[in-house]
Formats: sequence, structure tokens, C-alpha cells
Amino acid sequence: MNFASDNWAGAHPSIAAGLSAHAGGFSTAYGDGALDQAVYQSFNEIFEREVAVFFVATGTAANSLSLTAYNKSGGISFCQRESHVIEDECGAPEYFTGGSRLYPVDGALGKIDPNNLDRAVGRFAPEIVHSGRPMAVSITQSTEVGTIYTLNEIARISAIAKHHKLPLHMDGARFANALVALETTPAEMTWKRGVDILSFGGTKNGCWCAEAIVLFDLDRARELAFLRKRAAQLFSKSRFVAAQFEAYFKDDLWLETARHANVTAARLAALIENSPSARLAWLPQANEVFAVMKKAEAERVQLAGAAFYDWHKPHGFDGHIGEDEALYRFVTSFATTAEEVDRFGQLVAG
Amino acid sequence: MNFASDNWAGAHPSIAAGLSAHAGGFSTAYGDGALDQAVYQSFNEIFEREVAVFFVATGTAANSLSLTAYNKSGGISFCQRESHVIEDECGAPEYFTGGSRLYPVDGALGKIDPNNLDRAVGRFAPEIVHSGRPMAVSITQSTEVGTIYTLNEIARISAIAKHHKLPLHMDGARFANALVALETTPAEMTWKRGVDILSFGGTKNGCWCAEAIVLFDLDRARELAFLRKRAAQLFSKSRFVAAQFEAYFKDDLWLETARHANVTAARLAALIENSPSARLAWLPQANEVFAVMKKAEAERVQLAGAAFYDWHKPHGFDGHIGEDEALYRFVTSFATTAEEVDRFGQLVAG
Amino acid sequence: MNFASDNWAGAHPSIAAGLSAHAGGFSTAYGDGALDQAVYQSFNEIFEREVAVFFVATGTAANSLSLTAYNKSGGISFCQRESHVIEDECGAPEYFTGGSRLYPVDGALGKIDPNNLDRAVGRFAPEIVHSGRPMAVSITQSTEVGTIYTLNEIARISAIAKHHKLPLHMDGARFANALVALETTPAEMTWKRGVDILSFGGTKNGCWCAEAIVLFDLDRARELAFLRKRAAQLFSKSRFVAAQFEAYFKDDLWLETARHANVTAARLAALIENSPSARLAWLPQANEVFAVMKKAEAERVQLAGAAFYDWHKPHGFDGHIGEDEALYRFVTSFATTAEEVDRFGQLVAG
Amino acid sequence: MNFASDNWAGAHPSIAAGLSAHAGGFSTAYGDGALDQAVYQSFNEIFEREVAVFFVATGTAANSLSLTAYNKSGGISFCQRESHVIEDECGAPEYFTGGSRLYPVDGALGKIDPNNLDRAVGRFAPEIVHSGRPMAVSITQSTEVGTIYTLNEIARISAIAKHHKLPLHMDGARFANALVALETTPAEMTWKRGVDILSFGGTKNGCWCAEAIVLFDLDRARELAFLRKRAAQLFSKSRFVAAQFEAYFKDDLWLETARHANVTAARLAALIENSPSARLAWLPQANEVFAVMKKAEAERVQLAGAAFYDWHKPHGFDGHIGEDEALYRFVTSFATTAEEVDRFGQLVAG
Repeated sequence: MNFASDNWAGAHPSIAAGLSAHAGGFSTAYGDGALDQAVYQSFNEIFEREVAVFFVATGTAANSLSLTAYNKSGGISFCQRESHVIEDECGAPEYFTGGSRLYPVDGALGKIDPNNLDRAVGRFAPEIVHSGRPMAVSITQSTEVGTIYTLNEIARISAIAKHHKLPLHMDGARFANALVALETTPAEMTWKRGVDILSFGGTKNGCWCAEAIVLFDLDRARELAFLRKRAAQLFSKSRFVAAQFEAYFKDDLWLETARHANVTAARLAALIENSPSARLAWLPQANEVFAVMKKAEAERVQLAGAAFYDWHKPHGFDGHIGEDEALYRFVTSFATTAEEVDRFGQLVAG
Repeated sequence: MNFASDNWAGAHPSIAAGLSAHAGGFSTAYGDGALDQAVYQSFNEIFEREVAVFFVATGTAANSLSLTAYNKSGGISFCQRESHVIEDECGAPEYFTGGSRLYPVDGALGKIDPNNLDRAVGRFAPEIVHSGRPMAVSITQSTEVGTIYTLNEIARISAIAKHHKLPLHMDGARFANALVALETTPAEMTWKRGVDILSFGGTKNGCWCAEAIVLFDLDRARELAFLRKRAAQLFSKSRFVAAQFEAYFKDDLWLETARHANVTAARLAALIENSPSARLAWLPQANEVFAVMKKAEAERVQLAGAAFYDWHKPHGFDGHIGEDEALYRFVTSFATTAEEVDRFGQLVAG
Repeated sequence: MNFASDNWAGAHPSIAAGLSAHAGGFSTAYGDGALDQAVYQSFNEIFEREVAVFFVATGTAANSLSLTAYNKSGGISFCQRESHVIEDECGAPEYFTGGSRLYPVDGALGKIDPNNLDRAVGRFAPEIVHSGRPMAVSITQSTEVGTIYTLNEIARISAIAKHHKLPLHMDGARFANALVALETTPAEMTWKRGVDILSFGGTKNGCWCAEAIVLFDLDRARELAFLRKRAAQLFSKSRFVAAQFEAYFKDDLWLETARHANVTAARLAALIENSPSARLAWLPQANEVFAVMKKAEAERVQLAGAAFYDWHKPHGFDGHIGEDEALYRFVTSFATTAEEVDRFGQLVAG
Repeated sequence: MNFASDNWAGAHPSIAAGLSAHAGGFSTAYGDGALDQAVYQSFNEIFEREVAVFFVATGTAANSLSLTAYNKSGGISFCQRESHVIEDECGAPEYFTGGSRLYPVDGALGKIDPNNLDRAVGRFAPEIVHSGRPMAVSITQSTEVGTIYTLNEIARISAIAKHHKLPLHMDGARFANALVALETTPAEMTWKRGVDILSFGGTKNGCWCAEAIVLFDLDRARELAFLRKRAAQLFSKSRFVAAQFEAYFKDDLWLETARHANVTAARLAALIENSPSARLAWLPQANEVFAVMKKAEAERVQLAGAAFYDWHKPHGFDGHIGEDEALYRFVTSFATTAEEVDRFGQLVAG
């Protein structure tokens, strides 16, 4: 019953097998091998257009380099107040850009409120050097708290960004979970809605280490190649990432693992819904479930073998949390089984 | 007959098997899992003392973060003129440190000349802000051109660094190849000779992606943890690096693969020595062989299926290269077979 | 009737005369001349202890380098939400530190609320690399909106900073105005209350260009010398700053000019208090007066020759501003005359 | 007899008077005042075309921001091996650019050798991310060792830069000295020969603190405004720089002071030429004279009241320096009198 995080799981057997299958033989290093090229082509097909793909080591690197691709002196990037870039990356985006700023925009349950965004960007007069200047907008899909932007909401954010001549970045560490939840296509969820650059995460969805920047704005591709190398994010044996992505995409494994995680989260949510000792904090839309429980109850369940973490109250959550209660996060992944969910359900059913 | 580079090889079967073996189950992320801990312990044993170990994504990251751990404003790091940090990392060390400088020191065949080093560092008066100030010395073992510092030579460089109160970094992208060539121990080749921080490379010696910073100066460990995370070099599923290192160290696989590469290089060198159409540029000491060949001859051999690159004349090479000749580099690895070396030998024997 | 800003004034005649007096003769460059030394000594006397003094070009440089002196990877500096460092320096503090973050803390009328500060710093667990880590606290005295921290309030902020092992920086662009308002001494307002580093501004109070970092934490002085030079803030003919400070301190000119500015602001405030067409937004404590006026009225007065700017509503201001009204800022300086204040008074008296 | 440096002099009386004349009255801050505008217009006239002018605090800032205006990831700027940017700025250019590299190019007596430049730049293949990529060429006019590029030589360097699509920066800390020595115009010595951006120094030639970036490539002007502010180089009372430049340009004062310095240097050179105890190291072309003297003799003259420094042997100097001799530098300025030169001449005549 491990709901600690989707990065506590290992690798999907098919990913492991893919790696083993490609272990032999010689291949051009630094992203130019035949397998790398084939995987880039898969990205083109998946996104229904030509894209530029850059493998990197971590989601933090994908986010930080994405913003660096649009770097400006005095630049300010707008993101949701509790987003991963601002809360959990040790200032990497600021460091990579040599000091640009992240501007927290309020919005309920992990999503930027478009009106707040427009107001925040609008505060900056483009000619005034003192205050710095807007540089990018970044959204997370699915969000840190398991919610999802609808396609219309993405379009709305994108329109505001475009109105202010800003590029739109999407942090897709849990891209697949959002994609299958919306039952849409990668193209519809990104460039067709105005996304310019995407952090495409595979790690949380069954890979060992497979993260890519997908750049739709091809004019910046050459520059990004230098940015990546300078940031020590260019793998020599990049084949090992390509092999993971090959297996990831094959027979839509990635959609299947994401669906599994989402379905398992829904199953968990339903059990919590029916539990006398826990209640859903808000409706989960992807693979993260948030529930309010009595602290003593949570401790009992943890002692019985369930792993999960408490979480801070996000902006826009107006539910009640009693003195003896806390908010808890449960994350599912490709590796979560219905059986362990049900065991957890029994624990909180009593 | 692929001698292009040791990073053109894939992963050793035992590394691939190790990864597969650890694919299942849940484990704490970000370097704190049980397997991570066990591997840190292996490093302690291998180095015969407590060390702090930081997995990172690339050798460039290991080098750049190692220098960042000793960063100073106006700082200047001394390295051999043709070293990897200065020639092949797109300015990553400068970028990571926010603008410190790499100072090229001359020395023959990839190795810093100690007298030149002493003179170069000695130029800087510690109180003069205008000229900047020395910050670190970095050596490569084995070097970019397949040569090796003896233990005494390391001690000599180290003494100069210490005299100037500078830390000594070792770029060990090919650490194992030097180690087995010297028939010494990791402790003797590093901290017992005054090395303070080491880029410990596994990728070129049979791993997919297994690089670590080994820090002997434990007081800096906490700081380096932040430096690594800020540089987007902290893997979430760090288990995938640990699994590689576990297999790498098991039954001294790493020494065996390095020995194999060195022995194969020696075999290749012997064949070149006896060839009428090629001659050794200098004696190989690790897994890289440099030879002078007629360009037409090289082309012929390449067309016949041998992969290798031409190389620039390194500092300190005083051999003759004719107008119609060039210098070529041949790299061997765990994956190079005696058979393909012999095939190459036949090609150049004619 | 120019109340636009205290940096719209030129130089006090004594400052100009001081510069002329020192124009001749030769003197060691880069801050080591006899006059520089004498001025450093004056700083020691004024602060009643040994301090390290670093002349820099701008207040932004003083603030940015002060924070850089305490720089950390993943570092976070806490300042009031509307402070100059965060609002008006184009990201210079982030740039100088290579990407540290400014964390806005709420507090009424330009002053950090101590409880908010404690809570904000307390959110960061020192061992968690993901969230970054606290690095400094910065307060502004007097504040951007003309208010002043009492000595007890400084002590309170300082105690919180110390509790969290953080240094305390004071942005003293308008240091003198606060000093004379509190009728205290430089020592009492700074290091005796726990301030570790101070941006000491002379420009807004009658100099052309005289800004200094005053460092109480002498162990960091040598490092700061390199930081300043690297930031291109070391003047060659630093004598020209020293000459200004010599004149500034002579016969307490600086206290006199600050008192004049404050008294003139109070006179202006009184006239506004009595005006039917304007009302004080809050009580001015230094040389800045904020008033609410009808927009039409403000325009009329501006057309009649009064220069001043509208201002955004600061955090903690709960006064009413009507639809047809706005908030305006009036800044006085050594160069503001009672006569022009009174002329303004007549304009708004009708 | 002070020949230590041209920044040991104070300010020319006309500069001091100019500052005093503008001390009174109110004026828009941050470079937008009427006097600022008038001075920008003077720059247009002096350069016979529209230019963008940015006042900054130091020559180091002018150089560093000039390179930052053309910044690239992995960027490499080519400058003469012993140039000021590389030897005397504590890594400021690297710091400002977030880690670009300065590449030392050899050339005799302070001047880049064009062939060496072409070869150095040519080493970098534009598509290879590993090695970084050329970003700018920087020359110094007049050079650190008192020599001058002819107009043809500038054109030659410029052609090479253009061939490689690189901008050309000129460090003109001693611009006026070169200008009057060549008897040419500012336009001919800069943009008409392909210079894209210029560090225009007034400080060494009689100002207190008057440095400007002159940008010929107007498309980059808006960006440079942000770069300057972010680097804490935007003066609030910028009038104080403008006032200096106004006086500097009035009645060609700047040409007169530069001519005086050059003529005085020539007088000094002639006296050294005739001295039995000193000999010219090379022919001075601007306001710096380099001579070889017996160390004992130099000491004697210094004890008799002459101030000057020893200097390292520059690249390309092939004169003989005996064991008991050293190389010395003598700098003249607007403030050097014929009388003190002659007194020095008598000292070395004996």
C-alpha cells in the first residue's frame, strides 16, 4: 500500500526489457544515434507535427531549460503559487536563467486563475526597466494537486499569454495522466491550444529516467541544443533514454500505465468517499487523491502498512479541517494494484 | 571495428541485468532509498574511508558541480590546456559557477606540467582583486589522450595545490582505466594523494548512465546537496543509478571491464606498431590509442568498416606528421573484442 | 514645487564644493587613497566601532551586493512585499546572486510584519533541498512609503532573523531621514539592534552619487572586496565618492539635510491635512507624504506647476479611495523650500 | 612626478566646474533629464550618426555589459591575451554573461594578431555544442601597453569578425588618446571600420567618473537598457555623468586633454631615449611609456619622488631585459606637467 509518490515506483517491466534489448552494439553518442532519431520521429507522430525533442535528466531540468529558452534580463515567469517550479526545485529555474523571477499567481487547486494572470502580467509596463518584464507563463498539467486544466482553460491561459506576447510553457511531469483523463490527443492539449514548449515526463509514469523537452517553436531549437549542453544535461549514451521512450510509446504503453494510475486513484477515492474515517478534500481528476483524515486515524493506517504523506492546504481549498485532522496525499502509479487499494479501503472502512 | 568512443558502446549485460532486477517494488526517491544507501556504503569500502557520494547525470555535471563546490567570486581553476572541462563542456563549469574561469596550463600529452602549474598559480597575488584569484586545480585521470599520472605525479600536483591552499579535483571519467593500469587502489590514487573531490565515471566503462561525485572533504557535503538539486541533477528514481553501480562493483566487474579495455587497447597498439601503414603517436597507457596514418590509408580502412576519428595534435607531441598524414584516435571499451581488433590489424597489416 | 522624487534634486552646494576642492593632485586609485581612508575612519566614528566600507555606484548595487555577501545555493531572502529590492531593481538581487529568490512578506505600510516573517521563514525545513533555504532578511529604513521601524521593531525583526540563523540587511537609501526622525544614533539603529550589513545611501540626501555598503560582520570584508570588483562596482577614482562623503559628514551636513527634508514633509502634510481637496493617506514619518486626491484636482495642481506621482495602494492601507480619486506621493529633499511647499499649500487650499 | 596611472589624477577643473554648474535645480532621474538628452545628442554629433548611449559606473561595467549585449550560451569572446578585460576585471565579463568565456589571442604589444584571431575563431565549428561557440571579438584602443591599432588594422580585425558573423567591441578606456594620435574622427575609428559597440571612457582622460557604452547597433538598445538596470549600473542622478560629458566635449576639451597626455608621454619618451640609465622598451603611441631600467636605478628615482610601476613583459616584446633590470610603465594624463616630466628627465640623465 505505497501511495507516497509515483516516483517511488521502479520501472515498468516493458521499460526494463526495452533497455536490455538495446544494451548491445555501438551507436552514435549525444543524441544522434539511430534509435534516438527513431524516437524523435515517434514524437513527431504523437504530436502530429514536427517537434524538436531534447532528452534531459530530470523534470526540474526540463522546466528550467524550457524557461531558459525564453530568457530575458529582468524576466518574470508567471506560474501558479504552489506549482512545482516554485515550490520544489530549489531555485533551479532562477539559477538556470541567471536570476529571472518566478511570479506566483493565485488560483484554486493548483490551477492559475486567468483573471489573476491577466492582472499580474498587466501590472508590468513594457518600457519600465525598474520593475523587470514578463517573460513566460507556465502551467502544470496535471497539477500538483491532481486537478486538470480543460482544453478551454488552456486556450484561455494561452490567449492571455499571447495577448501579452508571452510564450506558454506546460510542465507535463504527469502529462499522460491528464491526457487520458481528458480523452484528448497530445496535439490538442498542447500546440493546438497555444503551448510553445512542453516538459514531457515519462519517469513518473513507468520509466526509470525519461524526460524530454518538446519544443514546438522550432526556431529556438538550435539555441536550446547549446543551452542543454551548457547545463550538463546532454547524455552521452542518450540511447538509454531513447530505449525507454521507445518502449513507452510502443502499443500505447504510456496511455495504458496512465489510465491504470488514474483508474486506481478513482477506486481509492471511491473507497475514501465511503469511509467513515476519511473524506475526499476535492475530486481527483488524475492520479493523486487528497483526503482529510483524523491524525490518529492516519497514523493507525500508516502503522498498518500504508505509505502516504500529509500535505499543506492548497490555495482555493475551502473545506474544513478540524484541529485533530490533517490533509493527506495519496499517489497512484502504473505499479499500484487494485488489491492494495482495496486493502487500504478495508483499513479505513472500519 | 568500432573505435569511435567508449560512449558509443551500450551497457554491459550485467548492468542491464542489474537494472532489471531492481525494476520492481517501491523505494524512497531522491537518493534516500535502501539501495542508494547500500551503494554509498560500497563507495566507502572501495575508498577505505567515509566519502559523500552524489549521483549526477553526466560527467560534465560531475566536473562542473565539483568546481562549484569550491566556487569563489573571481575564481580561477587550473586545468590542462586540452582537458575535457575546457574543451568539451560548452562552458558548463563557467556557467555552473556563475562565471569563474578555467585557466589552461600547458603540459605534455594531456598532463599538467607541475612547474607550469606552480608558475601559473603563483602569478596571482591573493590580495589583488583585479586579477581574480585561484580557486581549484583539476586533473584528468586517465587523460583525454590516454596517458596516466603516476601516483607521484598526483602527489606533486597536489602538493602545489596545497601550497597555494587550493583544492584538487580529479576528473575520473576514465578512472577505472587508470586505476587498473597503475595497479593501485582507489584510495591511493585519490585522497591519499591529496585529491579532495572526484568525478567518478561509470558510463564510459560499461554503464548506461552512472556518474557520481565522490567528495572526501565531508564538511562540504551538505552544501553540495543543495548545489546538485539547484542544478537539476538530483534524480527522483535515483535507484536506477544505484542499481547500475551495484552491478558495476559486484565481483569487481568495473575493474574487469577496464582491464579488458586497456588490454584490448594494448593489443591494438601492438598491431599498429607492426603495421607498415600506421605508427603509434605515443605509447597508450589506458584505453585510447593514438596513431599517425596516411589520410588515404585511414579512409580505406574506414571504408572497410573501422570507425575512428581524427584528432588534433596535442600539446607536447613532437612527432612528425606528414602533409598527407593525420593523427587518429582509437578508443576501446568493455565491448571491444579481440576479434575486431585483429580484423583491424589485418586491414593495416597489408 | 517638485515633489517627484528626492533623486530629482541635484547636489547640495557643499557636496559640489567638496568635489571641486579635491579635484586636484594625485591619489591612489581604487579606494586606497588618503581621502578614502579618512572617510572610512569617519564611518568608524559615526558607527562607534570598526566597520568595513565599500563605495558602490547605486543603491541597487548596495542592496544586491549586500545579499550576495550572504549568498547560498537555493537561497531565499525575505523582504517586505513592496520593498525596493523586489519592486524596482529589475531583478538585480537575483542576478547578482546567480538566482537566489526574494520572498515577499506582508506587512502594513512598507514594514515587514514580524509574525508573518517568522511564519514565512519557519516554512522551510533546513534539510529539505527541494524547497531551497532561507538566506537573509532585508528591511528598508525608512520604507518606500515614508514610514519608519522603531528601534524595538528592528530588534524584533532581528531576533527572528537570529533565531533562524539569518543575517539582517538594512536598505538605508533613506537612512538619514529615519535616523533624525527617531532621534537616535547610527549605532543604535543598526548593529546594536542586530543589523549585519547596511546599504548606506547619500545620493537621495544631497549627494550626486555616494552609496556605500557598511559591513559590521568584518569576517566577510575580504570576500566582499572581490564581489564588488567582479560586479564592476569598484570605482577607479573613488576619491570622488570619498569627497562627497567627507562633505556629507562635515558639521553633520547629512543630518541637517535629512532634517530639512523631514520638516518640509511635515509642513506639506499639515497643509494637506487642512486642505479641502486632499487628505493624508497615512501619517508621514520621514520625507515622503502620501495623500488621496481627486484625480481632476491632482491634474489641476500639476498643471499649475507641481510635480508628483500617483502611487499604487500599499499593502495594509485600509483607507477609502473613491472612484474619481487616486493616491499620490510627494517626496521632499534638501532642495525643497518652505516657499514651494507653501505655494503648493495655497494651490490645494482653495 | 606621478606616472603611476591616469586614474590617479583627479578631475580637470572644467569638469569640476561643470558639475558645480549643474548642481542646482530639479531634473528627471535615471537618464531621462534634459541634460542627459543634450549629451546623447552630442554623442550623435561626435559620431556623425545616431548612436545609443548608456552611462555606466566603470570601464569594467562598460566592457562587461557590451559583451553581455551579445551574450550566447556557451559563448566565447576573443581578446588580446593581455587585455584589460581578461587581466584586470576579476572575471566581471564572465560574471555578467553568466559564464561566457574570454579566449586569449596572441599578438604583439597589446594588439590582436589578425591571423591568430582568424585561426582561433576558425577552430570552432558552429554546429558542435561541445566546444561552445564564438560570440564576440574585443579590441582595446589604445591598448594596455600604449600602442594603437591603425584604421586599417581595425578594418582587418573587423573583416575577420564579420566573416565569422561576430560583433566587434572596442574597449575605449583610452579612446581619446588613440583618436588624437591617429588624427582621425570617432566615426572613422569605430563604426566606419565595423565596430558595433564601444566602451567610451572619460574617467582616465580628466573626468571623475564618466563612462558610457556607445551602441551603433540600435536594434539592441532596448535590451541593453534592461541589462544595464539589472546590473545595477543605472544612475538615478545620471545628470552628474551628463554634466561631466558636457564639459568634456565643450570646446573639444577631451581632445585637448588627450593631446596633452600624449605629448607629455612623447616628451618623457624622448628624455628616456637620451638617458644613460633607461631605454625605451618600445615606441609609445599614446599616453603610456614603457622603459627598461636597472632595478637599483628605478628605486633611486622612486625614492627621489617619481611614482611608477614595474610591469610584466608583454607578449611580442623581444627586447633584452638584464637580470638586474626590469620593465617599468609611466602613464601621463591631463594633469601631468612638462615640468615634472623634465624633473624626471634630470633624475635619469645623470
